[in-house]
Amino acid sequence: MATEETEVAKTENAKIGFIGGVSENNYLEMPELLNPENLGKEIRTEGAIHAIRNMGKVAFIVLRKRDGIIQCVADASDGAVDPGTLEEADTVIAGGVLEKNEKAPGGAEVHLTGIRVLSRPAEAMPVPIARAKMRVSLETNLNLRPVTLRNERERARFKIQEGITRGFRDYLYSQGFTEVHTPKISSKGAEGGANIFKLDYFHHPAVLAQSPQFWKQIMVGVFDRVFETGPVFRAEKHNTKRHLNEYTSLDFEMGYIDSFYDICAMETGVLQYIMKLLQESYAEPLALLGITELPKTDENPYVRFDDAKRLVSAKYSRAIRNPYDLEPEEEALIGRYFKEEYGADFVFVTHYPSKKRPFYAMDDPENPKFTLSFDCLFRGLEITTGGQRIHDYNELLAKIERKGMEPDGMDGYLMAFRHGMPPHGGLGIGLERLTMQLLGVDNVRETTLFPRDMTRLEP
Amino acid sequence: MATEETEVAKTENAKIGFIGGVSENNYLEMPELLNPENLGKEIRTEGAIHAIRNMGKVAFIVLRKRDGIIQCVADASDGAVDPGTLEEADTVIAGGVLEKNEKAPGGAEVHLTGIRVLSRPAEAMPVPIARAKMRVSLETNLNLRPVTLRNERERARFKIQEGITRGFRDYLYSQGFTEVHTPKISSKGAEGGANIFKLDYFHHPAVLAQSPQFWKQIMVGVFDRVFETGPVFRAEKHNTKRHLNEYTSLDFEMGYIDSFYDICAMETGVLQYIMKLLQESYAEPLALLGITELPKTDENPYVRFDDAKRLVSAKYSRAIRNPYDLEPEEEALIGRYFKEEYGADFVFVTHYPSKKRPFYAMDDPENPKFTLSFDCLFRGLEITTGGQRIHDYNELLAKIERKGMEPDGMDGYLMAFRHGMPPHGGLGIGLERLTMQLLGVDNVRETTLFPRDMTRLEP
Repeated sequence: MATEETEVAKTENAKIGFIGGVSENNYLEMPELLNPENLGKEIRTEGAIHAIRNMGKVAFIVLRKRDGIIQCVADASDGAVDPGTLEEADTVIAGGVLEKNEKAPGGAEVHLTGIRVLSRPAEAMPVPIARAKMRVSLETNLNLRPVTLRNERERARFKIQEGITRGFRDYLYSQGFTEVHTPKISSKGAEGGANIFKLDYFHHPAVLAQSPQFWKQIMVGVFDRVFETGPVFRAEKHNTKRHLNEYTSLDFEMGYIDSFYDICAMETGVLQYIMKLLQESYAEPLALLGITELPKTDENPYVRFDDAKRLVSAKYSRAIRNPYDLEPEEEALIGRYFKEEYGADFVFVTHYPSKKRPFYAMDDPENPKFTLSFDCLFRGLEITTGGQRIHDYNELLAKIERKGMEPDGMDGYLMAFRHGMPPHGGLGIGLERLTMQLLGVDNVRETTLFPRDMTRLEP
Repeated sequence: MATEETEVAKTENAKIGFIGGVSENNYLEMPELLNPENLGKEIRTEGAIHAIRNMGKVAFIVLRKRDGIIQCVADASDGAVDPGTLEEADTVIAGGVLEKNEKAPGGAEVHLTGIRVLSRPAEAMPVPIARAKMRVSLETNLNLRPVTLRNERERARFKIQEGITRGFRDYLYSQGFTEVHTPKISSKGAEGGANIFKLDYFHHPAVLAQSPQFWKQIMVGVFDRVFETGPVFRAEKHNTKRHLNEYTSLDFEMGYIDSFYDICAMETGVLQYIMKLLQESYAEPLALLGITELPKTDENPYVRFDDAKRLVSAKYSRAIRNPYDLEPEEEALIGRYFKEEYGADFVFVTHYPSKKRPFYAMDDPENPKFTLSFDCLFRGLEITTGGQRIHDYNELLAKIERKGMEPDGMDGYLMAFRHGMPPHGGLGIGLERLTMQLLGVDNVRETTLFPRDMTRLEP
């Protein structure tokens, strides 16, 4: 890609040039390489050598490009390119003629007329990244993340993850939400509890945000509807398949709600939009992963927490052990129940016990032992926690006292309420968990580029 | 806003409902309130009481809505609404008839027929947020951030900031970039130096990311072109008008470049797109802030670091004191020079001395004392640092050694290079600084929702 230099002036021996923006280059990307109109044309394309298969008379040089792979053919009979001079993981500019080949991925290949090596690896790949399935352990995969991510299936997961975040934002923009960026370092955690990372901030004790909860609520007083997509940090000592100590949270918060069902409805709208966007714009990565059917989002059922417990206990003959929280197995059974009975992939489980919800959750006036809150389960795994929040200043103070908490470090948060807040609520969606369930993978680390868990701080 | 309940089933005494998405409500938002077609109609709208002006016969109740303000009128002669029952900062649902009034903001007002109070503040506002300009000190503004942000001009700044981030992403999507989410907690900082926040990570020493540098470079090996918009953390002991200890960095990194000018060209494309988006979709907040002209982005000049120094030294008779870096005053003069000579708002200053650039910067083969890197100055302030990076593994190792650094904790980063990387480069744009210069405000804290500096950890 060349830049446009429209003028080069000499001022007192100083060279001054001008850049007018991105100009077209002559390198073809995948959509153009697979466009039948370009068959027979001389083309150039850049990429990394994903695999070399030398068959003697011809050698197949598979290039990995940002949006797919293209097969190139070095024909020994014309001698234009000597495959013996190439190595896997070289990055190159390939020149050649685009030809039809039904057996090539995408139905087209480049008959090479020349190749220029831009860079060369120092060592061969430690794992067979060009195979459809690498067949390495999760541990090895994560240890070698900078190269295992170059595998096509690995890439596809994160391309789809991009689509999820993008769909989340675009839908909320369309619904009048404003995007915000709130601080990750503060003097107090929003969610309470012990799972807080602490740090020294210029000799003051500080913590990393467990969620943007305080900030997004404050911002409801400013913009009514806000969202944020960013990292959150939880020092939880859970080394399970579904826990990360740093993850990306898709958060929104909205004012002037009638009830927390408005939040469930907005999440349903978000999910419907995401699935539509994936279907329309992320068809290749979905196909690559063999995902032919996206989850059902047209209507999502909701059920009370205590009812859900009873339903699955009865149907699957499982005793209720913990009346205050859902055990992972219970979540899985609720997912199964609603799939079997209603064909549903998402379920809102509502009215969680107050005991297990943070201080800012609004209690149900009909029975204050429960809250006007919910979790959203996706195929039996919690991906969202949300609900209506207390908006009255005095009620909030009373709840803080009732929970035995100290309001120190909450001055800014409380200030918003002291000076008036509309009825509001919101939610946080775990991006990696949503991706994990959508793709049907087993461990949330597989849908995290560089996971952070209790024992993993690198790469 | 009501949710659609399409069915309520009873299963073993459990109530199950269904939510089909966001349904239309009857509350009008600003575009509908200001639509002449709705004049004369009975309408409902929700909002916070921004100001009450009781003139006796009539009282003006100004509602603050998420996308603007609307004037409502309580007419004493019809007695429908008693303004004496209302307080500033009440949140309400107002009902009435939409009438034309040239004197009202937007040219329309609601003749109230009823009002319902949803919530009431515990205390009156500490500052006059309904005035166009609050006339409070920056210190007071920041201390009272949860309420000062409710001022219309304050809101407008962050609405425009949303447009910048949105434009950055949307343009890069269109250029084949993939969005990534990389870890903010790691074992080693990418930028080196002393300005690193440290924390204890399950009894291991860890640091907060100064930039996504290592990760975005690694991801060039995966997706060729990547971007990230997220927080970065710098423990810099600079308490100036342009420093923050936590800020939002707009980062991209791209492979297969011919030179670092390709990065400048991509940034120019980004800036052109952002300005177009602001003009088309953010006209109201721009008008509110009196911004009639957006910066010129059609052609951005570039000039070498040493040439730039000489140019401004000669023109403004200022001695060159530090040959290795630009002093803030020099940056301002470079901005002034290119505005005066070329009408330019953005300038790329290129070829910074190697001494002042991080180890990953590629040295200029023509003179290794300088790097193939640049800063972008916007109206005389650095908003971007970027450049071409070393892509060869052995060169990278040699540079690390030459800089006297230890490669410990860089295993993952180096792995990407050991197994092949294309020629590449990228940049990071400081979102708050870009917003600050665009809006012509004096202190970067004014374009940060909740700034973090050496002495400010709250709100």
